[in-house]
Amino acid sequence: MPRDIPALSHPSRNRQVLLTSRPAGVPQPGDFALAESDIPRPDPGQMLVRNIYLSADPAQRGWASAEANYSAPVPLGGPMRALAVAQVVESRAEGFERGDFVYGFFGWQDYASVAPDAVLHRIVEDVPLDAAGSLLGINGVTAYLALTKLGRPTVGDTLVVSTAAGSVGSFVGQIGASLGARTIGLTGDDDKVRRCIDSYGYAAAINYKTADLAAELKASAPGGVNVYYDNTGGTILDTVLRQMAVAGRVVQCGTASVASWMPTPTGPRNEREILTRRLVWSGFVIFDHMADYDAACTDLAAMWRAGTITYHSDISYGIDTAPGAIAALYSGANTGKKLIQIT
Amino acid sequence: MPRDIPALSHPSRNRQVLLTSRPAGVPQPGDFALAESDIPRPDPGQMLVRNIYLSADPAQRGWASAEANYSAPVPLGGPMRALAVAQVVESRAEGFERGDFVYGFFGWQDYASVAPDAVLHRIVEDVPLDAAGSLLGINGVTAYLALTKLGRPTVGDTLVVSTAAGSVGSFVGQIGASLGARTIGLTGDDDKVRRCIDSYGYAAAINYKTADLAAELKASAPGGVNVYYDNTGGTILDTVLRQMAVAGRVVQCGTASVASWMPTPTGPRNEREILTRRLVWSGFVIFDHMADYDAACTDLAAMWRAGTITYHSDISYGIDTAPGAIAALYSGANTGKKLIQIT
Repeated sequence: MPRDIPALSHPSRNRQVLLTSRPAGVPQPGDFALAESDIPRPDPGQMLVRNIYLSADPAQRGWASAEANYSAPVPLGGPMRALAVAQVVESRAEGFERGDFVYGFFGWQDYASVAPDAVLHRIVEDVPLDAAGSLLGINGVTAYLALTKLGRPTVGDTLVVSTAAGSVGSFVGQIGASLGARTIGLTGDDDKVRRCIDSYGYAAAINYKTADLAAELKASAPGGVNVYYDNTGGTILDTVLRQMAVAGRVVQCGTASVASWMPTPTGPRNEREILTRRLVWSGFVIFDHMADYDAACTDLAAMWRAGTITYHSDISYGIDTAPGAIAALYSGANTGKKLIQIT
Repeated sequence: MPRDIPALSHPSRNRQVLLTSRPAGVPQPGDFALAESDIPRPDPGQMLVRNIYLSADPAQRGWASAEANYSAPVPLGGPMRALAVAQVVESRAEGFERGDFVYGFFGWQDYASVAPDAVLHRIVEDVPLDAAGSLLGINGVTAYLALTKLGRPTVGDTLVVSTAAGSVGSFVGQIGASLGARTIGLTGDDDKVRRCIDSYGYAAAINYKTADLAAELKASAPGGVNVYYDNTGGTILDTVLRQMAVAGRVVQCGTASVASWMPTPTGPRNEREILTRRLVWSGFVIFDHMADYDAACTDLAAMWRAGTITYHSDISYGIDTAPGAIAALYSGANTGKKLIQIT
């Protein structure tokens, strides 16, 4: 589709958001600094991209952290690792041409010169560009692949989702409902409860901050929970685990409710629940599943065109809104997918 | 094979071990009482069996408990639920004949009149009768099915097993080694460490009571643990989880190290390990897999005939040794499978 890309206000310099201190827990605005540098030139095999939407994702907490993780920590003083929706300005890489829209690891900055392996997805679907950073971003594709590969809800199953109105959960609820599951959303305020019901296809939604979660879950899912898609960990997880049906599946996709893992927090032991309920509890990280990424985008775009899935972008404007974006995610302030439009 | 069955010392009465109090935690000898009753007559559709070997199994803790579980609690004042190897004395049930050897839920008693659904396995394999309550008992079949269905070790994988010399673990080690895994046994005394190496095919074994488990495991499995077959739960589980390789599988088959679940004990939160290591942690209860029981026995008997698997029975003599048998299991006093021979 023809796309109207706003001009940059500073087209000749590369503004960057640098990680300047190693956060303990969730990165705060003070862990970052704005800087400017020259626009990098692409080496042979690289392409120069101009970012349009920067992404803020819960996974950035892990990338900024020095704790052992599934990826190396972002170097201090370097631009913050981030996903972005971008357009190719100049290509010296095979398979990419000037004008192509791409989604990948381009960092919190105006421009990046990257090799093709930084690209997660070449945007060929006829979706709005903000959808390319949401429905077709790691959050939408995570929702789709983790639910269909690990959660595997079938018709009539009860599917519970935490951070149900969030950037991943909002898609999990809709995809689960489209697969015939009865979906119950857990979220932290009443506006999001309403959004779960009105926009994201949940049959029921519970405000875990004000409700007696165990009692309300029991009332909403008297036969037990067949699939729990968990983005929070912590006490919400503990409560839902104890209401799983036999042979239920738990998908661990995030641990947003746990403020810090140093030192390791404690909680009730869960191994007996796994044993006696014969659960399957699996961890999902999207970067293990890149071979399935493009096919997932094809399916998600088709669902969007058919009207079975909707997305909601929470867009702020200007690169200077990036440093506070991760902390906002963890405080539950956003609804839908947090994007920062470069201006 | 022709079998020589010793005569009973009290052939005309049915001695029973009754559950007389509801244990808090592991059943102790004082929770049981010996009694005598008439030999029950089989109704139409039933068979009368005479027990030869009574089985003592860790699962009996759960059956005796009032805690929610995968089976209803044993009624107070009734014979203790137990598996046994028996011979059919009189059959009014289709498909069973006098003289057949059977393994099933016949209780801690001399005789039982039962319907065919109490029989887990009709013993057609040419194995010694004590092997029918061990290699082909729920412990051997659990080891085989849980490892091959959930653990799925492949050639070169590192497989760690807790209670490695126990009634389940001793088979897991041997089956894992036969599948090409490098097996590491965790056990609680040096004699069992030796038995792991000498008899059960473990490449390495660690006494978790005297060793620095984390350090020794790191030394034995520098590339991480691909499969952890856990029979203990608790701190041993916590330690191994933190040394799992990416995409590792954890099979929860028991929680023998946790003395009581009321109230729920606490431990370090494990959800971040599941997520960042992309583990699959599954619970296994043999009674979900009865359709595969006979085929597993065929395979296990073939492995025994081929000399790739050995078994070790820890036999006590006389029904009066039953009441202390479960507590002995949990104290780690036995080696191999605990059986009580009726005399």
